[in-house]
Amino acid sequence: MLQQTTFTLESRPRGFHLVTDEVVAGAPDLGDVEAGLLHLWIRHTSASLTVNENASPDVRRDFESWVNDAVPEAATYWTHTLEGPDDMPAHIKASLMGPSLTLPVSGGRLALGTWQGIYLCEHRDRGGAREVVATLVA
Amino acid sequence: MLQQTTFTLESRPRGFHLVTDEVVAGAPDLGDVEAGLLHLWIRHTSASLTVNENASPDVRRDFESWVNDAVPEAATYWTHTLEGPDDMPAHIKASLMGPSLTLPVSGGRLALGTWQGIYLCEHRDRGGAREVVATLVA
Amino acid sequence: MLQQTTFTLESRPRGFHLVTDEVVAGAPDLGDVEAGLLHLWIRHTSASLTVNENASPDVRRDFESWVNDAVPEAATYWTHTLEGPDDMPAHIKASLMGPSLTLPVSGGRLALGTWQGIYLCEHRDRGGAREVVATLVA
Repeated sequence: MLQQTTFTLESRPRGFHLVTDEVVAGAPDLGDVEAGLLHLWIRHTSASLTVNENASPDVRRDFESWVNDAVPEAATYWTHTLEGPDDMPAHIKASLMGPSLTLPVSGGRLALGTWQGIYLCEHRDRGGAREVVATLVA
Repeated sequence: MLQQTTFTLESRPRGFHLVTDEVVAGAPDLGDVEAGLLHLWIRHTSASLTVNENASPDVRRDFESWVNDAVPEAATYWTHTLEGPDDMPAHIKASLMGPSLTLPVSGGRLALGTWQGIYLCEHRDRGGAREVVATLVA
Repeated sequence: MLQQTTFTLESRPRGFHLVTDEVVAGAPDLGDVEAGLLHLWIRHTSASLTVNENASPDVRRDFESWVNDAVPEAATYWTHTLEGPDDMPAHIKASLMGPSLTLPVSGGRLALGTWQGIYLCEHRDRGGAREVVATLVA
C-alpha cells in the first residue's frame, strides 16, 4: 500500500524548528498502519529536515549557532553571491542536514525514540512557506 | 511485503564502530529477498548511523578526530550544557551523520559495495546500548 | 511493486556534478508510476549523492570550496594516509553528503522542486566510474 500527499509547512524565521505535529497532520493518516515507512521530501534547496532532541529550545538554538559557524557567510570563497549573503550558505546547510527523512511507523504512530522530534531547518533569512511531499509505504 | 523488527546494538565507547554483522543479525531475514530495501532507524539523538570503509580501523579513528574538530566541545556558543560537554556536540554530530540508513537488498543480501560497511557512530562518552528499528520492504 | 537496476555514472573530475538526467536514464522507468519512491545507492565510500540547486554552476563550485575547507587535507590528525592526501577527506565527505537518496515519484516523474537536481559528489582526484543501485517502490 502506498499513499502520497503534499502539504505546506508555514513560514518560519531562520533557525531550527520542531514540526512533528505539523508533519503528522499533513502526512497520510498513520492510524491504521501496523508497520510501515513514512518518507518526507522538502521541495527546496535552502531548507532541510532532520530529527533531534524534542524538549529543549536551547538545543535548536545551538544547532543554528553551530551551522552558522560551520558554514560562515563571511567565507572568502563564495562565488554564488547574487541572492544575498545567506543564500549560498543555505544551500550547503540544506545538503548537510538533508532534504528528506524516512521514518519508521509502528502501531499507528511514528516509531520515534522518546526524545526524537522532526526539525524543519530554515536556512534563509526569509524562506517563506515550505512544501513537503509525504509518501507512506505500508 | 513489509517486515519490521527492533533490536539493540550493544553499548560501545565513543567513536565510530563497524556493526554490519550485528545489524544483519537483528534485521528481518534477507535470505529470500530477491530485491528490496532495508531501512534502519536509531531511536536516539546522540548516536547515528552511516556507511563507510569496512577495512581499516584508522578510517574509523579519523572519523572521530574529524567530528571532534568540526563540532568542538569548547565552542563558546553552546547554551545547552546541563548534560555535560559531550552532550550538545553529540546532538549536532547525530544530525550530521543522520539517524537512518536505507540500504538496497539484492539476491538475499545487502547490496553494498565491496568496501562498504555499516557504522554505529557513538557520540556520547557513555551512550549505553542503542535501539534500532529495522524495516524491510520487498 | 518493486524494481531494481544497477547502472554506472561516468567518470568525472573531483567536484559536484549535476546528474539528474543520467540517473533517470539508468533507473527503472518512472513513466507509469502514479506515486512511488526511487531509492539510489552509490556503492562507494569516497563519492556521494545529494540534491541541490540545478541552475548555477557556481553553486556546485562553492560546494567544492566549502567541503575542502570543512574537511581539510592538511589536517594534522589524519592517520589513514596510505592512499594519498585526498583519500581520508573523501571518506568523511562521503558520509557528510551521504551514500543514498530516496526521492518521491509522482505522475510518472521525480517529484523534485523546481530548483532541485541530483548531484554526484566526486571526492577523489581520480575516482573513476561510480556504480549506483536504483530501487523503485510503487
